[in-house]
Amino acid sequence: MTASSRLLLDAGSGGQASHRLVADLFLKHFDNPVLAVMDDAARLHLSGPVAMSTDGFIVDPIIFPGGNIGSLAVHGTVNDVAMLGARPRYLTAGFILEEGLDMAVLETIVAAMGQAARDAGVQIVAGDTKVAPKGALDKIFITTTGIGEILVDPAPSGHRARPGDAVLLSGTMGDHGLAILSTRQGLAFETPIVSDCASLNGLVESLITTLPDVHTLRDPTRGGLATTLNEIASQSGVVVEVEEEAIPVHPAVAAGCSFLGLDPLYLANEGKLLCIVPEADAEHALALLRAHPLGGNAARIGTIQEPQGKTRAGQVLLRTPLGGRRLLGMLEGEQLPRIC
Amino acid sequence: MTASSRLLLDAGSGGQASHRLVADLFLKHFDNPVLAVMDDAARLHLSGPVAMSTDGFIVDPIIFPGGNIGSLAVHGTVNDVAMLGARPRYLTAGFILEEGLDMAVLETIVAAMGQAARDAGVQIVAGDTKVAPKGALDKIFITTTGIGEILVDPAPSGHRARPGDAVLLSGTMGDHGLAILSTRQGLAFETPIVSDCASLNGLVESLITTLPDVHTLRDPTRGGLATTLNEIASQSGVVVEVEEEAIPVHPAVAAGCSFLGLDPLYLANEGKLLCIVPEADAEHALALLRAHPLGGNAARIGTIQEPQGKTRAGQVLLRTPLGGRRLLGMLEGEQLPRIC
Repeated sequence: MTASSRLLLDAGSGGQASHRLVADLFLKHFDNPVLAVMDDAARLHLSGPVAMSTDGFIVDPIIFPGGNIGSLAVHGTVNDVAMLGARPRYLTAGFILEEGLDMAVLETIVAAMGQAARDAGVQIVAGDTKVAPKGALDKIFITTTGIGEILVDPAPSGHRARPGDAVLLSGTMGDHGLAILSTRQGLAFETPIVSDCASLNGLVESLITTLPDVHTLRDPTRGGLATTLNEIASQSGVVVEVEEEAIPVHPAVAAGCSFLGLDPLYLANEGKLLCIVPEADAEHALALLRAHPLGGNAARIGTIQEPQGKTRAGQVLLRTPLGGRRLLGMLEGEQLPRIC
Repeated sequence: MTASSRLLLDAGSGGQASHRLVADLFLKHFDNPVLAVMDDAARLHLSGPVAMSTDGFIVDPIIFPGGNIGSLAVHGTVNDVAMLGARPRYLTAGFILEEGLDMAVLETIVAAMGQAARDAGVQIVAGDTKVAPKGALDKIFITTTGIGEILVDPAPSGHRARPGDAVLLSGTMGDHGLAILSTRQGLAFETPIVSDCASLNGLVESLITTLPDVHTLRDPTRGGLATTLNEIASQSGVVVEVEEEAIPVHPAVAAGCSFLGLDPLYLANEGKLLCIVPEADAEHALALLRAHPLGGNAARIGTIQEPQGKTRAGQVLLRTPLGGRRLLGMLEGEQLPRIC
């Protein structure tokens, strides 16, 4: 670490101080032979069709129960790449840092990124650091971009949900959103709420190597499950019907949401996936999800339908415990800014 | 465009408003079939070894003579990928936006990105937008990541400069840095100073398809030519000797730097490259650079040497017009924060 306990502006100059920051912090925690070359770009080997995704992280607070902005930035981008039925291989990381940031906090975040990358089996091969004068941003923003090899053809897509398909969910909804909100507001629930943030690439790989005909994979992040289902219904031109009671929600999250007037179906998740498979594969897919440590609470939550009667393509219907059906719309407005 | 003339917080929610922003702005200006699929990741085809690079942009002001933060974000990442002797193919763009940003300004920036991408022959295939509450950042930050196919083997690298090699520069130094500084400070020079920001991939391709044994390519951005030369000297374990008088500097930039007490060798450039080739290829390489519209002022500025006598590997020597030699160090401190 540098001698100063606060990040100085010249760490973003591109000169001497930038080189020290890279050597003392990024090369230390992201250690890998591709990054160590330190050219303008990383030289990689990839074969076949690839998936590429990018995601910016501005979460507030930057450290929260279950993770921090660094681990979240790795998990989030690993997951987006994996949702195309791909094996994530390489990440890049762009840091925008506020002058005066506590160096110990920065190292905690960078170390968590390095650990999350190793756990997910990806390498952080290129990066960039900018430092803006105090006040030009709030502490730290990270943008990660990931690339990986697509393992199945055709790849899972939001456009491939077909009438009759089963809709599965890998676990409970709302944990990340409520963890961030309760930390930010200083709320203490009896059971602490912990973010679910995790890399799902292992879960995806165990699923698609056995059942390559997974039609759709998507992680319900910002906007929550309701928004993700609406996106898929629109992209595929179908109706999605889900059973409210079948959607797993941790009791503490349900209680917290009830207390705060929030709907867990609109809260962000950072370690869960939605999976749409042909009916014939539904039981097998559910068993595969449940056999994985990150899928223990997996459940079948609904079915894809043709538009018929009063329903229209692109709609999501929620069947309530009393037997009614109501439209589940996409998120309107903003529930929780800076949730990820 | 959306009806509101100011960016609202819910444009970053992931819900309805985010989808409108994507459709009305990003899909409109970045239009391409890969992006239009709108899955969590883009599906790409790449063959052979690839180059990948990322860069964050926080330049202030966001619009400046010669470009804006959007065009700069495309040029900067296209250039980093090209410096590995690669043909840039795909970009991703992560936007972090401040609530209340003028939508017309945002559209100007996004339109400039789309145009710069088309001009450079790259597609913006994936993106992400976060909106932070007013005050959490200053207007707009963009992080771009690029990937492209490496055209030559071995690829140019900072590690490949060899004693005897010629050091060429594609044009004048300091234009971008001085353009930003003078705009920020409201200085009006007699000859307006314009940023050189441009995509260099065409120039690189014309060079390496004719002379595949280019040893090193690098664009001297933050930290300027002096810092870039120091990086290469260190990476290759050589001494770089350059002639001060041979380094092209636009007369208006020289005058402005003299007035402000700045050294153009430490100012950022965003449309210039440094090129190190075997002596036998030097004349041909220089002719190729000069034949390209972005290389009209190209010049040979020096030679790579073995460390000998008092010189040590990693040093850069500047031969002054009076015949003296002095060490040209890496940038110390921070000359101009938020230069790119």
